Amino acid sequence: MTFDAAAILGALATLASITSFAPQAWKIIRTRDTKSISAPGFTLTVTAFSLWLSYGVVLNEWPIILTNAICLVMAAFILMMKLLPQRNKDAVAGALDPNG
Amino acid sequence: MTFDAAAILGALATLASITSFAPQAWKIIRTRDTKSISAPGFTLTVTAFSLWLSYGVVLNEWPIILTNAICLVMAAFILMMKLLPQRNKDAVAGALDPNG
Repeated sequence: MTFDAAAILGALATLASITSFAPQAWKIIRTRDTKSISAPGFTLTVTAFSLWLSYGVVLNEWPIILTNAICLVMAAFILMMKLLPQRNKDAVAGALDPNG
Repeated sequence: MTFDAAAILGALATLASITSFAPQAWKIIRTRDTKSISAPGFTLTVTAFSLWLSYGVVLNEWPIILTNAICLVMAAFILMMKLLPQRNKDAVAGALDPNG
């Protein structure tokens, strides 16, 4: 088994990238608080993942497509929760948080 | 000039990725508020950029190295501000925000 550092680093980096949004999404669902989150920042983040997704499609590279599609969904959820009025935030969070 | 969609998409995606942290960092400097930001989330984000940076170094790919080094610095700043006690947060923000 050849030791391919780049492949291992790439796989670990992909895993960390994909999972990095989950704690933030869950914190928003639990607390319904998005006050200190930047809407322009997450708009750029959603834009970036949309572009990386298109990049993967153009190159027909499934690892890039899959990674960025998952990150796009997570980042878009966070942006949506940031932009929603509080009562809609509460409704979405209530639906997603069984202990809510 | 050949129309290379992938190169253009990659460049735009890189630009969006690099700039996406700036609004969040600036909002923290202005408001000194990191309450709704997830520390585990940004720890994973910093981990991901560290891994992508190592990936770029192993492949000796300067675009990957540069992009992820900048993102790492920005994400690490946000994580640092999240973890700092409030009075240190205020001190750092005060130093960085001329109108602070």
